[in-house]
Amino acid sequence: MHIDILTLFPEMFEGVLNSSIMKRAQDMNAFSYNTVNFRDYTESKHNKVDDTPYGGGAGMVLSPQPIFDAVDAVKEKSSQTKPPRVILLCPQGEPHSQQKAEELAQEEHLIFLCGHYEGYDERIRTHLVTDEISIGDYVLTGGELGAMVVMDSVVRLLPSVLGNESSAPEDSFSNGLLEHPHYTRPRDFRGMHVPEVLFSGNHAKIDEWRHQQSLKRTYERRKDLLQDYSLSKKEKEWIESWKNE
Amino acid sequence: MHIDILTLFPEMFEGVLNSSIMKRAQDMNAFSYNTVNFRDYTESKHNKVDDTPYGGGAGMVLSPQPIFDAVDAVKEKSSQTKPPRVILLCPQGEPHSQQKAEELAQEEHLIFLCGHYEGYDERIRTHLVTDEISIGDYVLTGGELGAMVVMDSVVRLLPSVLGNESSAPEDSFSNGLLEHPHYTRPRDFRGMHVPEVLFSGNHAKIDEWRHQQSLKRTYERRKDLLQDYSLSKKEKEWIESWKNE
Repeated sequence: MHIDILTLFPEMFEGVLNSSIMKRAQDMNAFSYNTVNFRDYTESKHNKVDDTPYGGGAGMVLSPQPIFDAVDAVKEKSSQTKPPRVILLCPQGEPHSQQKAEELAQEEHLIFLCGHYEGYDERIRTHLVTDEISIGDYVLTGGELGAMVVMDSVVRLLPSVLGNESSAPEDSFSNGLLEHPHYTRPRDFRGMHVPEVLFSGNHAKIDEWRHQQSLKRTYERRKDLLQDYSLSKKEKEWIESWKNE
Repeated sequence: MHIDILTLFPEMFEGVLNSSIMKRAQDMNAFSYNTVNFRDYTESKHNKVDDTPYGGGAGMVLSPQPIFDAVDAVKEKSSQTKPPRVILLCPQGEPHSQQKAEELAQEEHLIFLCGHYEGYDERIRTHLVTDEISIGDYVLTGGELGAMVVMDSVVRLLPSVLGNESSAPEDSFSNGLLEHPHYTRPRDFRGMHVPEVLFSGNHAKIDEWRHQQSLKRTYERRKDLLQDYSLSKKEKEWIESWKNE
């Protein structure tokens, strides 16, 4: 997979993309990336990439010209046969999800557009972009962190990028419930103890305890996730018992 | 505000925290930050910070000792009178929101705990952490990007950090609807035109068009946001007309 990132702040990406799993994924040629400062493509005399909004109002709007030209240039350089996905990070986008990450992990070429403070000229959305993604319902100063978040969620799914060390966090979404509690040494830390069941040696009992804790945490924290989860008879009984707590 | 970040990958933060608004916010003393590699606090002979889970299973679990000791050290150094918020980034956390960002922006001292691939020993959650936050329902390789996202959403709200240039993106959540489309020069870009209403000079008409577009976008993309929005008679009529489109 190749990823092009259009941004006015290319220096934001280095630390994140050259550490840990993202670095390893590049070392093993699972993906490569390139940052493109779209200011290099502006035809404006004063090197501007934004302008005031038609119809008035506060804030600036990113002009279509530098963005369209930068994407054209990136597409021309590409050796991929399949057309790229052009992804805009914005609060108006589809909420990012694990399914979306899995879908994007099938692609050969992703282009991320990261605006900063401003709005985007609507023609960028309607005629250039294939996907608008929002990483959550909160306001950020730019699209750069969103692009890094989406990239991280996608790159870790590419073939052989992950070793065994990462299997655990997967749990939180793979079965539709939040992950159960984990404990490791020491058994007594500052007077805080590990639940006895984990020392029982009875694996069926441990599995049941973990499953129950996983459901309980989801019930207490994220009832919304249970809407798409079909409860067994036993699970319904557990939930009834928690209602009286 | 002071922010301490506990992480095994301090180098991930530099690019993001020393660019753009985050840099400006530090230059104007709105906040300061410090990264702490909690591996420096382990008492393990082999410099380990994690261990296998009690009760068996895949993956590793972050040990309580280095994390508790690192947080103790950070608290001891602090000159703040109010106790810090200790924030764990994890998929099991409360979904991050604009309200949460506004709440955290009132604090003097935040401590972020960023795990990487592994789970956390439950005693960290129950006895050390004040807030568990998830930035969205997708799996990331670590808590670092989550910490940067939460920091960005908080720091931009600190007094006088933002100039006027950032007023526009605010729209998307301030009135409960997604933002309306923006347009800027040129009026005709590669045959794509700006809507005529924006040249009418009639500001009441422009405001109404924008409000209608904002509602339409929300209706088409994020019906979930309309659950908390009280529709006027006119808005209800608009929605009825879109149902027949």
